[in-house]
Amino acid sequence: MPGHDFFLYLPLILLSARLFAELAIRWQAPPVIGELMAGVVLGPSLLGWVSPGEAVRLMAEIGIILLLFGVGLETDVHRLVKAGRQALTVAVVGFVTPMALGFLVALQLFDLPLLVSLFIGGTLTATSIGITVRVLADLNRQHSHEGQVVLGAAVIDDVLGVILLALLYEFAVGGGVNVANASKVMIFILAFFVLAPVAARLVAFALQRFARISRIPGLIPASIVSLVLAFAWLANVLGAPELLGGFAAGLALSRRFFLPFGVALHQDARFAEQIETEMKPILYLFTPIFFVYVGLSLNLREIEWGSPFIWVFSAVMLLVAVFGKVVGALWLNENWARRGIMGIAMVPRGEVGLVFAELGRVSGILNNEIYAGLLIVIAITTLITPFFMKWYYGRFQSLLPNEPWL
Amino acid sequence: MPGHDFFLYLPLILLSARLFAELAIRWQAPPVIGELMAGVVLGPSLLGWVSPGEAVRLMAEIGIILLLFGVGLETDVHRLVKAGRQALTVAVVGFVTPMALGFLVALQLFDLPLLVSLFIGGTLTATSIGITVRVLADLNRQHSHEGQVVLGAAVIDDVLGVILLALLYEFAVGGGVNVANASKVMIFILAFFVLAPVAARLVAFALQRFARISRIPGLIPASIVSLVLAFAWLANVLGAPELLGGFAAGLALSRRFFLPFGVALHQDARFAEQIETEMKPILYLFTPIFFVYVGLSLNLREIEWGSPFIWVFSAVMLLVAVFGKVVGALWLNENWARRGIMGIAMVPRGEVGLVFAELGRVSGILNNEIYAGLLIVIAITTLITPFFMKWYYGRFQSLLPNEPWL
Repeated sequence: MPGHDFFLYLPLILLSARLFAELAIRWQAPPVIGELMAGVVLGPSLLGWVSPGEAVRLMAEIGIILLLFGVGLETDVHRLVKAGRQALTVAVVGFVTPMALGFLVALQLFDLPLLVSLFIGGTLTATSIGITVRVLADLNRQHSHEGQVVLGAAVIDDVLGVILLALLYEFAVGGGVNVANASKVMIFILAFFVLAPVAARLVAFALQRFARISRIPGLIPASIVSLVLAFAWLANVLGAPELLGGFAAGLALSRRFFLPFGVALHQDARFAEQIETEMKPILYLFTPIFFVYVGLSLNLREIEWGSPFIWVFSAVMLLVAVFGKVVGALWLNENWARRGIMGIAMVPRGEVGLVFAELGRVSGILNNEIYAGLLIVIAITTLITPFFMKWYYGRFQSLLPNEPWL
Repeated sequence: MPGHDFFLYLPLILLSARLFAELAIRWQAPPVIGELMAGVVLGPSLLGWVSPGEAVRLMAEIGIILLLFGVGLETDVHRLVKAGRQALTVAVVGFVTPMALGFLVALQLFDLPLLVSLFIGGTLTATSIGITVRVLADLNRQHSHEGQVVLGAAVIDDVLGVILLALLYEFAVGGGVNVANASKVMIFILAFFVLAPVAARLVAFALQRFARISRIPGLIPASIVSLVLAFAWLANVLGAPELLGGFAAGLALSRRFFLPFGVALHQDARFAEQIETEMKPILYLFTPIFFVYVGLSLNLREIEWGSPFIWVFSAVMLLVAVFGKVVGALWLNENWARRGIMGIAMVPRGEVGLVFAELGRVSGILNNEIYAGLLIVIAITTLITPFFMKWYYGRFQSLLPNEPWL
């Protein structure tokens, strides 16, 4: 892709994202739907104007990493930890159920081979942390208790998803699975999550001192973006999803971060505020690129709409996909309206599901029909859930426990 | 380049740019020298840690386009036009002299073939608009009269350079030159420069109205970056350098822009201020990438330091390169201290010279020795001139005409 194409694609992506998001809001839909639709319209599904190359993909990845950084920045670690037990339940039940059910249904009901059934189950385990978090923010519920539980669960799901993907890939290539390897990755990721925020906090502390003696403007944008991307890189090296590196860096810079053993690394409030002010335009610039990119990747033309198998298959898998995620929240000992919204919020598969399905296809495990069926499940869970969440909040708002800080 | 390499390269580039720039300031050097040196150190010349791929190159290009946007944003069109006649003299004399002298010296003194001599002359015509403008800004002289003349001259030089490059390339490939084609490109570029700011101003006006009804935050970063890149794309399509698209967009959004025929498209001051506040972090993020990239591209290992030919050749060409640029300013009817600084400011060849030399090499016209000799000329004019400008201002400041608005 020569430079001048990129300089046309990027404005097309940014401006259509904005236009469709504004339209979405006017039609009572969450703006993220507009951004996804912009991708569907610009991409191979409809107009085919934008064929994203390497550079657009990288900017989209920077977008989701920065979005998670922003989420981390606004997260109260105390409250996230408090939501931890419930988040773990929602995540694990919502991971195991669609995996097991999807696998069994594919194997028994559709009579598919073992490996194919495993990949179908794997695709259904995904939770799109990006879309979930963004919809909650669009509805201004990201700081609610259910928001914290869903955020925690989505983070855990992302980690589980990466491990499962590595296992399935190993199994597909070698026919066996090395449990020692998998546990090593698990331990690395855990270590990352405990150590990364502490390390990032130390870096931020050094930065704050450095800012006082710096004689050139522009320290914050360059150094915070560097910090965030370096942590994304580190997460990737240790086997964790890149976006969790961004989340860890955000958590560490949040005003409500605390270090263990009461170590005092006070952040001066003015510096924290400056970070937010200067990072916001950069976040606003990059994050829509990610959602448009998800829409661009969703090639609806690959679905052979006439095939009856696809419709039956995707209808059954859609049931599995929705039930498998909602059931995790229904288990909780919690106000029922809240359990409902937690369950629904976990449903969008988004980009994480696409990665699974795509890997299954390019490695020759999933044929075009099954891939298309999964694409329908991913598209519906991703594009319909935000509407449903909005409707649900409108309908059951009064039944949710009161949270005065919202 | 897989994503995770990029996520390591970008922090390396940004952090070393910052570190070296801070060091440069402490050693009384302009910060841009630090950023260039960061590229030399990280790149193939020294450590070889970063091998920039497509994505880094595109981000560097966004950097220089946004830098020129920023320059345009702060430019007073009245004052630029007032500097126009002098700028034209400096540009044309400083373009023709090094071209003609370089060509003749190569052909006669070094006995080189016609096409090689033409490319050597072409390489010497370049003026690095990025480095020139940045050094003036580092010294806080960008709004001075000499700053305006140099800016105008560098813009004109860039246009002339692109046309010359196209002609030389045509000549190298086909053996002849189509003057009609060249004039067409010239007319396109002129039309672009007259129409682009007006068009951008209209877009900005629409944007300002749209901002009032928009219900999602983040309009400015996404839409201004889109506007700037779209104009860069348009400039490229019409045959002009991309960065001039950024400059035109910046001019149009500047507070001191005026439309012909007294058309009133008043920009409300709050909106203009908002653009500056929100675009600044984005500029600070991207522009250092460009200067580090120039340093990365300057592979000093390709120079065979032992060859006597290279030293003689580059010493002679350095004289031609410096004299050829300075002479343009010396012609002017102007205070002599000011003539001196204008001449010196035009000397850095930077990335524009590299493009010429690189094209000559990959098309097989320049052999490694001549390429290396030109590389030395480019490196010295780029890396030494900023020091010299700083020293000159320190020494002759009192002899410059007083400009109370600085």
